[in-house]
Amino acid sequence: MLLCERCHQQHEEDSKYWRCPCGGALLLHVDETRFPSQEALQSRPSSLWRYKEALPLRDGTIPVSLGEGLTPLVPLPWKSGRVFFKLDYLCPTGSYKDRGVAYEVTRLKELGISSIVEDSSGNAGAAMAAYAARAGIHCQIFVPEYTSAGKCVQIESYGAELVRVPGSREDTTRAAEQAASHTYYASHNWSPYFVHGIKTYAFEIWEQLQCTAPHKIIVPAGQGSLVLGCYLAFRHLLQSKIISRFPQIIAVQAKNCAPLYEAFIQRKEEPVQIEKQETIAEGISSALPVRGREVLAAIRKTGGEMLAVDEEEIKRGFYDLAKAGLYVEPTSAVVAAALAKLEGQGKLLTSETTVAFLSGSGLKATDKILHLK
Amino acid sequence: MLLCERCHQQHEEDSKYWRCPCGGALLLHVDETRFPSQEALQSRPSSLWRYKEALPLRDGTIPVSLGEGLTPLVPLPWKSGRVFFKLDYLCPTGSYKDRGVAYEVTRLKELGISSIVEDSSGNAGAAMAAYAARAGIHCQIFVPEYTSAGKCVQIESYGAELVRVPGSREDTTRAAEQAASHTYYASHNWSPYFVHGIKTYAFEIWEQLQCTAPHKIIVPAGQGSLVLGCYLAFRHLLQSKIISRFPQIIAVQAKNCAPLYEAFIQRKEEPVQIEKQETIAEGISSALPVRGREVLAAIRKTGGEMLAVDEEEIKRGFYDLAKAGLYVEPTSAVVAAALAKLEGQGKLLTSETTVAFLSGSGLKATDKILHLK
Ligand SMILES: [Zn+2]
Ligand SMILES: [Zn+2]
Repeated sequence: MLLCERCHQQHEEDSKYWRCPCGGALLLHVDETRFPSQEALQSRPSSLWRYKEALPLRDGTIPVSLGEGLTPLVPLPWKSGRVFFKLDYLCPTGSYKDRGVAYEVTRLKELGISSIVEDSSGNAGAAMAAYAARAGIHCQIFVPEYTSAGKCVQIESYGAELVRVPGSREDTTRAAEQAASHTYYASHNWSPYFVHGIKTYAFEIWEQLQCTAPHKIIVPAGQGSLVLGCYLAFRHLLQSKIISRFPQIIAVQAKNCAPLYEAFIQRKEEPVQIEKQETIAEGISSALPVRGREVLAAIRKTGGEMLAVDEEEIKRGFYDLAKAGLYVEPTSAVVAAALAKLEGQGKLLTSETTVAFLSGSGLKATDKILHLK
Repeated sequence: MLLCERCHQQHEEDSKYWRCPCGGALLLHVDETRFPSQEALQSRPSSLWRYKEALPLRDGTIPVSLGEGLTPLVPLPWKSGRVFFKLDYLCPTGSYKDRGVAYEVTRLKELGISSIVEDSSGNAGAAMAAYAARAGIHCQIFVPEYTSAGKCVQIESYGAELVRVPGSREDTTRAAEQAASHTYYASHNWSPYFVHGIKTYAFEIWEQLQCTAPHKIIVPAGQGSLVLGCYLAFRHLLQSKIISRFPQIIAVQAKNCAPLYEAFIQRKEEPVQIEKQETIAEGISSALPVRGREVLAAIRKTGGEMLAVDEEEIKRGFYDLAKAGLYVEPTSAVVAAALAKLEGQGKLLTSETTVAFLSGSGLKATDKILHLK
C-alpha cells in the first residue's frame, strides 16, 4: 500500500500514482518487524538485496541490479579523533542514488511500466538511465541546459533520451511533469519506493559496525532522502528489537541554499521559503524539498541537529578529504565541513562512533574541482 | 625474498631494489600452500585484506587501506548467453590499480620509505597519489604533458606533486627514473609487490562464484598485470589444493598496440617489437611490457589465448556495455569487443562460466567518450 504523507489516504500500488491526487507525497508501507538474523545475513548476496525483508517484492521478481550496495566503511584518523567514512560514491554509477533507483526501477518493472520520465541535474539522471537500460525500460531524462557535457554524455551513453531544457532547474521539473502526462513520471523525489532503496546504506553501517548503531551519522541534505532513509532504517531496527536507540542524524546544508536548516533553528515544522544562491554543493541545492516536513521531523526524533556550511568551508572540506585519499564531489564535502564544525564545538568525541556519509564521486565533478582553487 | 625473473638471483627485501642489478624484474616470493578456509573467510573484512595469508606483512602492520576490493560480480544476459562482469572500476580511485598500489604502499611504508616517485599516464598515478596520501608518504607523479586536465586535478587534489614531462610516454618514464636516483622509484610495473595486490581480484571471482573457478576470464592486457595476477591467484588455489584446474586466461590487446598478441600468435616467448599506433584504449598502450615473457607463459600455461581488437570494435564494445548499464573507460571496452569475437567463433558457451573484467571507470574518460561517436 502507498500512504499519502499529507492526507493520510491509502492507495493501491497498481494505481500507478506518482503522487496523491491531493498533491501530497506517497510512501510505501513496509512491515518493520521483520529483519534477517545475523546468521542469515552471512549467506546473503553482497549487495543491498541482502536486506530483502525490508525491500518487499512480488514473489518471483528478480531485482534489477548492477551489484549496488555494501560499499566500504573506512575508519580514518580525523583531527583529534577517528571517523568512519561510508564511501557510497563507489556505487555503480558514482553516487548513492543507485540504491534508491535500483529498488524503484525494480518495482516499476513489476508494475509493467515500460517508459519513464525523470528530471535531474546530475546523479539521479545517470542512475535512472543506467537502471532503465538494465531493465529494458525506455527512459527520458530532462536536464537544465547548463548541465555539464560530462554528465550529459554519461546519461546518453546508457541509451537514455536526453532533453535539455532552457531556464532554471525548476523549469526542467515543469517540463518533465508535462511530458509525464503520457508516460510515467519516475521522479526520485516523488517516488514512494526510492527512499526505501536509500535506507539500505544505514542497514550496512549497522552491519559493518559489528551490528551496532553508531552515535552520530552525518549526511548532506538537499531533498533529504539520506535523512529519511536513515530514519526508516533505524526505526526498522528498533521495531525489530535489534537496537534500542536511534543514532543522532546530523544533516548538513550549504548556507547558500538552506531551507531545512533555517526551519530547524527557527523550530518550524515546514521548510522555510528562501532566496536560493549558487553553491558548489549543487547536488543539495533544493529550495523546495518535496518531503521537507518529514525530514525535519525525522532529525528531531533522533535527537539530531542541522548544520549549515559556507562555500569556503566546503572547499576546505573537499581538500581535507582528498588529502586523506577520498576524492568526492564538492556536494559530499559539506560533510567534512560539518566534521570541522563539530570538532570546534567539542562534539566530535573519541568515546563515540561517528559516521560520515560520502555521496558522490569526484570523478563526476571535474569541471567544478578545476575551478575550486 | 625478492626473486629476479631474469637471472633468478634472490635479494633481501631490505635491499630496497626496485629492480635487479642485472636489469631484470623482481617478484616477491609467497608461500602458496596457505589459504583461508571458507569458514574463516566468512568473518574476514570486506576488502582484499580478507586474503591475508596471500599478502604477507610483518607482524603488527596495519594495511594502508581505503576499503579496496570485494567489487561486485554481476551476471548479465549477454548476446546468446550469460556473462559475469567484475566491476573493478568501483575501486576507491576508479580503477583496479588500487589493489596493487594498496599492497605496494603498505610494504613500502613497512620498509620505512618516506618519499616515492611514480610515472603514469592515468590510473596508476591517481591510485599511487591516493594511497601515498593515506600513508603519509611524499609522492611525485610524472605524467606526459598531454595528460588530460581531469586526470591531473585528481592526482593534485590528493596532495601529490605533479610533474608534466614534454614528449612521449617513454620520455616520462626516463624522467621519473632519473628523479628516482635520490628517492624510491615506486613504478607499479617494476614493483615486486604490485601484482600480488592485483591477484586478489581473482580470489574474489572464485569466492563470488561459490568457491569455484570459472572456465574463462577475459582481461585487458597492456603490461599484463591482470594476466599475471590471475595466474598467481589460481596457481595459489591449485597449490593449496582448493581447485583442480586453471581457468583459461583470455587476454585482449588493441590491434594498434599488440606486442604480446603478435608474440602469442607467432609462438614467440618474448613480446614482439612493434610500431605503436594511437588507440582509444590508452590504458593498455604499452609497446614494451616489462614482464612480457612471464605474461605470455602464464596465458599458455592456462590453455588460454590472446585476442586483438580494432578501434571500431572497441567503440562498439563501449556502447554494448553502457547499454547494459556499465559505464567504463574505453580501455575496458576491449573486453566487450573480445566477447563479441568469442561469440562469433562459437566460444561463448552457455555450458561454461565466463567472467569479463572491467578495469576502469567511464567517469575518468569523459574527454575520450565525448569524441567516440
Ligand atoms: Zn493525499
Ligand atoms: Zn637479475
